[in-house]
Amino acid sequence: MNSDSGPGRGPLTSGQDTGLLTPVRAGTAAEAATSDQAWLRAMLEAEAALARAQARAGTVPQDAARVIGQVAGTVTVDLADLALRARQAANPVVPLVAELRRAVAEVAPEAARYVHGGATSQDILDSAAMLVCRETVEITVSRLGLAMATLAELAETHRHTLMAARTLGQHAVPTTFGLKAAGWLAGLLGARDRLRALRLPAQLGGAAGTLAALGGDPELAGLFAEELGLRAPLVPWHAERSVVAELGAALAQTAGALGKVALDVILLAQTEVGEVAESSGGRSSAMPHKRNPALAVLVRSAALQVPVYAQLLASAQLAEHERAAGAWQAEWHPVRECLRLTAGAAETAAELLGGLRVFPERMRANTDLTGGRIVSERLTALLGRDRLDRAAGQDGPLDEVLAGEVPAEMFDPNDYLGAAQPLIDRVLTAYREQS
Amino acid sequence: MNSDSGPGRGPLTSGQDTGLLTPVRAGTAAEAATSDQAWLRAMLEAEAALARAQARAGTVPQDAARVIGQVAGTVTVDLADLALRARQAANPVVPLVAELRRAVAEVAPEAARYVHGGATSQDILDSAAMLVCRETVEITVSRLGLAMATLAELAETHRHTLMAARTLGQHAVPTTFGLKAAGWLAGLLGARDRLRALRLPAQLGGAAGTLAALGGDPELAGLFAEELGLRAPLVPWHAERSVVAELGAALAQTAGALGKVALDVILLAQTEVGEVAESSGGRSSAMPHKRNPALAVLVRSAALQVPVYAQLLASAQLAEHERAAGAWQAEWHPVRECLRLTAGAAETAAELLGGLRVFPERMRANTDLTGGRIVSERLTALLGRDRLDRAAGQDGPLDEVLAGEVPAEMFDPNDYLGAAQPLIDRVLTAYREQS
Amino acid sequence: MNSDSGPGRGPLTSGQDTGLLTPVRAGTAAEAATSDQAWLRAMLEAEAALARAQARAGTVPQDAARVIGQVAGTVTVDLADLALRARQAANPVVPLVAELRRAVAEVAPEAARYVHGGATSQDILDSAAMLVCRETVEITVSRLGLAMATLAELAETHRHTLMAARTLGQHAVPTTFGLKAAGWLAGLLGARDRLRALRLPAQLGGAAGTLAALGGDPELAGLFAEELGLRAPLVPWHAERSVVAELGAALAQTAGALGKVALDVILLAQTEVGEVAESSGGRSSAMPHKRNPALAVLVRSAALQVPVYAQLLASAQLAEHERAAGAWQAEWHPVRECLRLTAGAAETAAELLGGLRVFPERMRANTDLTGGRIVSERLTALLGRDRLDRAAGQDGPLDEVLAGEVPAEMFDPNDYLGAAQPLIDRVLTAYREQS
Amino acid sequence: MNSDSGPGRGPLTSGQDTGLLTPVRAGTAAEAATSDQAWLRAMLEAEAALARAQARAGTVPQDAARVIGQVAGTVTVDLADLALRARQAANPVVPLVAELRRAVAEVAPEAARYVHGGATSQDILDSAAMLVCRETVEITVSRLGLAMATLAELAETHRHTLMAARTLGQHAVPTTFGLKAAGWLAGLLGARDRLRALRLPAQLGGAAGTLAALGGDPELAGLFAEELGLRAPLVPWHAERSVVAELGAALAQTAGALGKVALDVILLAQTEVGEVAESSGGRSSAMPHKRNPALAVLVRSAALQVPVYAQLLASAQLAEHERAAGAWQAEWHPVRECLRLTAGAAETAAELLGGLRVFPERMRANTDLTGGRIVSERLTALLGRDRLDRAAGQDGPLDEVLAGEVPAEMFDPNDYLGAAQPLIDRVLTAYREQS
Repeated sequence: MNSDSGPGRGPLTSGQDTGLLTPVRAGTAAEAATSDQAWLRAMLEAEAALARAQARAGTVPQDAARVIGQVAGTVTVDLADLALRARQAANPVVPLVAELRRAVAEVAPEAARYVHGGATSQDILDSAAMLVCRETVEITVSRLGLAMATLAELAETHRHTLMAARTLGQHAVPTTFGLKAAGWLAGLLGARDRLRALRLPAQLGGAAGTLAALGGDPELAGLFAEELGLRAPLVPWHAERSVVAELGAALAQTAGALGKVALDVILLAQTEVGEVAESSGGRSSAMPHKRNPALAVLVRSAALQVPVYAQLLASAQLAEHERAAGAWQAEWHPVRECLRLTAGAAETAAELLGGLRVFPERMRANTDLTGGRIVSERLTALLGRDRLDRAAGQDGPLDEVLAGEVPAEMFDPNDYLGAAQPLIDRVLTAYREQS
Repeated sequence: MNSDSGPGRGPLTSGQDTGLLTPVRAGTAAEAATSDQAWLRAMLEAEAALARAQARAGTVPQDAARVIGQVAGTVTVDLADLALRARQAANPVVPLVAELRRAVAEVAPEAARYVHGGATSQDILDSAAMLVCRETVEITVSRLGLAMATLAELAETHRHTLMAARTLGQHAVPTTFGLKAAGWLAGLLGARDRLRALRLPAQLGGAAGTLAALGGDPELAGLFAEELGLRAPLVPWHAERSVVAELGAALAQTAGALGKVALDVILLAQTEVGEVAESSGGRSSAMPHKRNPALAVLVRSAALQVPVYAQLLASAQLAEHERAAGAWQAEWHPVRECLRLTAGAAETAAELLGGLRVFPERMRANTDLTGGRIVSERLTALLGRDRLDRAAGQDGPLDEVLAGEVPAEMFDPNDYLGAAQPLIDRVLTAYREQS
Repeated sequence: MNSDSGPGRGPLTSGQDTGLLTPVRAGTAAEAATSDQAWLRAMLEAEAALARAQARAGTVPQDAARVIGQVAGTVTVDLADLALRARQAANPVVPLVAELRRAVAEVAPEAARYVHGGATSQDILDSAAMLVCRETVEITVSRLGLAMATLAELAETHRHTLMAARTLGQHAVPTTFGLKAAGWLAGLLGARDRLRALRLPAQLGGAAGTLAALGGDPELAGLFAEELGLRAPLVPWHAERSVVAELGAALAQTAGALGKVALDVILLAQTEVGEVAESSGGRSSAMPHKRNPALAVLVRSAALQVPVYAQLLASAQLAEHERAAGAWQAEWHPVRECLRLTAGAAETAAELLGGLRVFPERMRANTDLTGGRIVSERLTALLGRDRLDRAAGQDGPLDEVLAGEVPAEMFDPNDYLGAAQPLIDRVLTAYREQS
Repeated sequence: MNSDSGPGRGPLTSGQDTGLLTPVRAGTAAEAATSDQAWLRAMLEAEAALARAQARAGTVPQDAARVIGQVAGTVTVDLADLALRARQAANPVVPLVAELRRAVAEVAPEAARYVHGGATSQDILDSAAMLVCRETVEITVSRLGLAMATLAELAETHRHTLMAARTLGQHAVPTTFGLKAAGWLAGLLGARDRLRALRLPAQLGGAAGTLAALGGDPELAGLFAEELGLRAPLVPWHAERSVVAELGAALAQTAGALGKVALDVILLAQTEVGEVAESSGGRSSAMPHKRNPALAVLVRSAALQVPVYAQLLASAQLAEHERAAGAWQAEWHPVRECLRLTAGAAETAAELLGGLRVFPERMRANTDLTGGRIVSERLTALLGRDRLDRAAGQDGPLDEVLAGEVPAEMFDPNDYLGAAQPLIDRVLTAYREQS
């Protein structure tokens, strides 16, 4: 067993990614939480928890469980070497167990035989994945919280800030920036709800889900789950993968809700629109006047990817017999990408929103771009479609074209905001209740 | 307005699909429930419900609402023509409203102006889609129920039927067919739970979600939802599409759970395995000895497709501003395919399971194929890996090779079933509690 | 056998789609070319061609082949009934062959035994699919041609029409609308090239690809291919599906190239940008001032879908043994959707471009929106980044802020168009050479 | 600027992947070729080539180009820091150029201003990606070559090795293992053809594709391409992404062809089938009798993933205006995954096939499992379907049931192999001609 120099440290081999190609998660909390190192530690934690659970069940001596736990918490493993040896067994647990057993034997030879007792590789890897997922989901929820707090503030501050609502890219009717922010907030609320509702289970079934080598004790899975702080599963889920599919779907929903915000920011920041800008503004190397919506672009890039990786997780439900020959192995990487891109996007969106610059005057000016025709819908209801069709083609502001035909206040976009205020209140109330 | 000859009838135009390329749903209940006809009726129902809701709110005369409801329930529309005219507006509601308004005007000219009053196309189409979804999800739940009843029976009947558990395609340890059936049942239980938890909302926001043309009354959406039997939304969700993404994910989970069953049936029905067969057996045109697992193949074909279409629904969350320019339109077809393939797969799976032939003798014979080595795991724990490695290579049944080294009963696969019985009970209990 | 009232006619059953949910293809040539009716005719054509090929090989009497051809060309089949019966065999060819054999027997009993002689269902369905693909690809190529002719014209006409180039939504440097049109044209050129390079093969292998029941004559596949005007395959490709994967990829590339045009049109048509508009303009039911880019929205909706369906075709390469148990069946529907959405998008794009309204004055006005800063890159090279950074923040047009520091002509965006002209020429030359 | 200790070396940060979750590529040549390190080197190579091309065009002094080339070849960069700084600009080139410029300035201050002269970040990143792609595609082609050589040998050696052909998992008719190997080979031939046909272009367009800051010289892109050994593009393709979409499709086809082989190996290695085994056999930690098809499982896991990532590349064609706001950034990671999973799968498949153990006796024994009914198709043609249907249900071998009704040799599966031999020859000939 090689040593590395501590958590998250070791020789950089050529296969390693620093986030150069996925800057949305570079340096974010999700990165460390989903690293190979994190997966390794979680697998070792699962091995330790198994020994503890078996000690509670009386099938492993307390001392052995204690030693296994100590060694699992301190052993160092050469990750690149482990990855390489994972090829022989089609999973990294087989070589890891060998390492752990050897390390335990160095300390307490009699304890070594209790390492991984009766478990199958998938018990450990699935449970470890759930630990990693739980932590990264928590990170995501916390970053969403930051983004949501800003959105709630924007919704309140700008509840009367007039702007054009746009459908199919065209000015439709007036709205307020507060209502837009409330809409973004509603999306994040739904996503956070969904993430919080996830109840990630431990996995324990032995070779083929009968727990035969685990003493045939179905309660052991419950003890094991307790040790890990995970949910006790109804039955082993080696080949019933709805847990992973649902996790992927929840992350895709979250990435989508964040991506919606990012997309709107990109559109509002267009040179011609100019209603918002990112605080620092992505600098262009050669064009000083540009203020690229760089963080929004990164968030959107994540939102474009996550649903696609999540699809793989839904497709992986097609698992053969008691354990799949390929579909399970195809889950590992997309699970990580869903996690770290979504959590990275949440952190990036929180940063983006925290620094968002809003330009109410520009919003107001844009609202007037159609010469008041943004209230056409209202006037159509009064004067009929034909009159408005004609007015649409006539020069001059609509209030001049139709002067005298309707009361003057009817042309005021601020007077045609419908339920904007109560809708904002609904979202803010839901936000406060949920938090 | 052309007439068609009744529900689901009209001229077949060249663009129409009969299910020739998706036999998994041919002739199933889902087909009628998701047809263009069904969508049309649901859109008309939404228009009628809107008028009723507005009558309750006092903004539309009761008489007008009654007439609109009557006409919406009886008007006939040329679907192909509607589809064609949908191109001009990028949605079919604009021409449909024109048709409905004209038809209402023929009966009660003064009522025509109340048709679609203040709504936007997306209010109607989204609400109609939710109606179609609700019905098709109900169909799916009912067909899942049939499949699950059979699975519960199989789990009970075959709780002691010995068979080989297989991992990565290899015999691992013994299990029972009852436990396998219970595992399938657990998957369907989870899927049904998820489908039942869906709370599909109505959509009502007007041009851009402010309800301005609807009198700015946010309560109107609640009345409208009541009329349709849908959930009242927190706020309009024109551009916050988690509802659709989540629906897709639930259907993908369901299709996946069904596909898992189908995949196992296909594998168990292989000529060399021969442990199950479909009742009639898909006949080959030229090979009388073949008994193709035809229904399982169809179910699997659906399970391969649905997660992919569902991905589109998650991706469609990236909607611009107040209404999307393309992403919303890209949802319509995949929503239908997710619905009808999943519901069709549920119905097909119920048929498949209802007629499944199980061959316990063959299961027993296959269990013995490795000369008793299927209990190697157990003996490894006793004799050590080295001894079993040697035994793996020696000729003859394992009980002869290792005769005298362990008690004779240790070789009995029936004695190495672990928690098979309590696990079956857990699933059956959950099934009975949920139903 | 039921009769239908002619090509593309028959009773509308509840499962049929008119295009209501996919208006991008409603009423287009692709619709008829990809209908169930078209698939049926192609399957019958394949049966007829098989008999003719066997007659040429001397294994079927010329008279029998003639009768089979006649009956195949005129027989009518109830598609909905066929779809239903397709469930028993997991494909529609088994019941179709029964129908055809019966119809032939009515005319010439002795010829009936030669129907489908030695072929397998997949031989017929794959070959039929290739016929449908070939025709729809031809339609697509022709509609692309129309779109490209317009683009070539736009590139020429507007080769000097100044507009802002935009990156990440921000004004970058000047360009011309002609160059933008040439860029769109380059994308379509590549797509058309790719479609034209497709060489779709016939399929003929018998039950499992050995042609055993076809007399073991590998040349027969060549004769069969000749009869159908398809390419002779190297070997049967029942379970080597690169042909279908590549077709899907070519269609996805085409849909993507069209979607790129549509996306740009949507962005250029935004109220704040206003540089182009669709000719008629999608009308809003209640907002007369709106000119929705309806056709562009439809094209984009197709472009969002096709790559996803195409993915299924690439995934379907994972086919078991000599013929797949599910993956093949999962290809049928996505193949059709890829075809008809792409061809529909090509036709819709041709219509869109044919009527595109271009507003050069607005392009020019937008170019000036940043007070001349659109040439900042150029001046940065001369004056250094620091000077321009300061200038970016100063009020007033850039030529006033930097007056005297650089020659006046350096501020003219028309003088900073780089290689716009030769690049346009390159694309136009490539277009003319390819056509 | 930090230093790292050489190519592929540096501090392991927590975000880095060793391949633990994607063992199919762990330790393969593709890993180093696609690492962040490799991308970094390729970006620096692109910067150097740009300077050289500009020196040839006369716009950069030869000395400056030489210095830039030297520094670019030796400079060390902290990748994790670069990834972090990539967030500000939404791409890693902006901070890299700053690093490079600083390093050049240390050596030759007057040369620093020529670094990245007139280029845009995407020119560098796209060109670098093409360099990485070219090398990884070459690796893939070479590994495919190894796999194909083995397959050609298997096809030859086992051209007469009788086995059952299976359709929908059922025995259909006889075939030979040589023909199966030839079929696999045909798939790889097609994939290699497609990879070899790729002509990856350099990218050079400046800020928005006009090459304005590059002197407006469209020929410069050709010189730049020459320096990099890439194809000269027709026009800049910043927002016309068919190159990347097509690359993804070619890799997906390759992964699919490899996955088809892996899937068949997994099925043939099933305990009940036992016709092949992997050389070493994936060991189970607790079940000595198991010989898991571990390498095949890994190859299949890659084949399940690549088409999904490739879909992202096709979808990324929807790029806004002159450079996309999110879609381009969403390409980077999937490009790498497509490359390294496919190349890793090719290397793994070569290893798998190189050690494949084939069991002809077991193939023969399985062929007889249906009591000779594997030739039913042949006899049906002679005796009629009814007779064979009855025979299918009768006990005893078919030659006994039908004794006297047909000549004895008709029962011999070796006499019913159709065109197996010429088909094998066709594939081998194509293989030899292509190589």
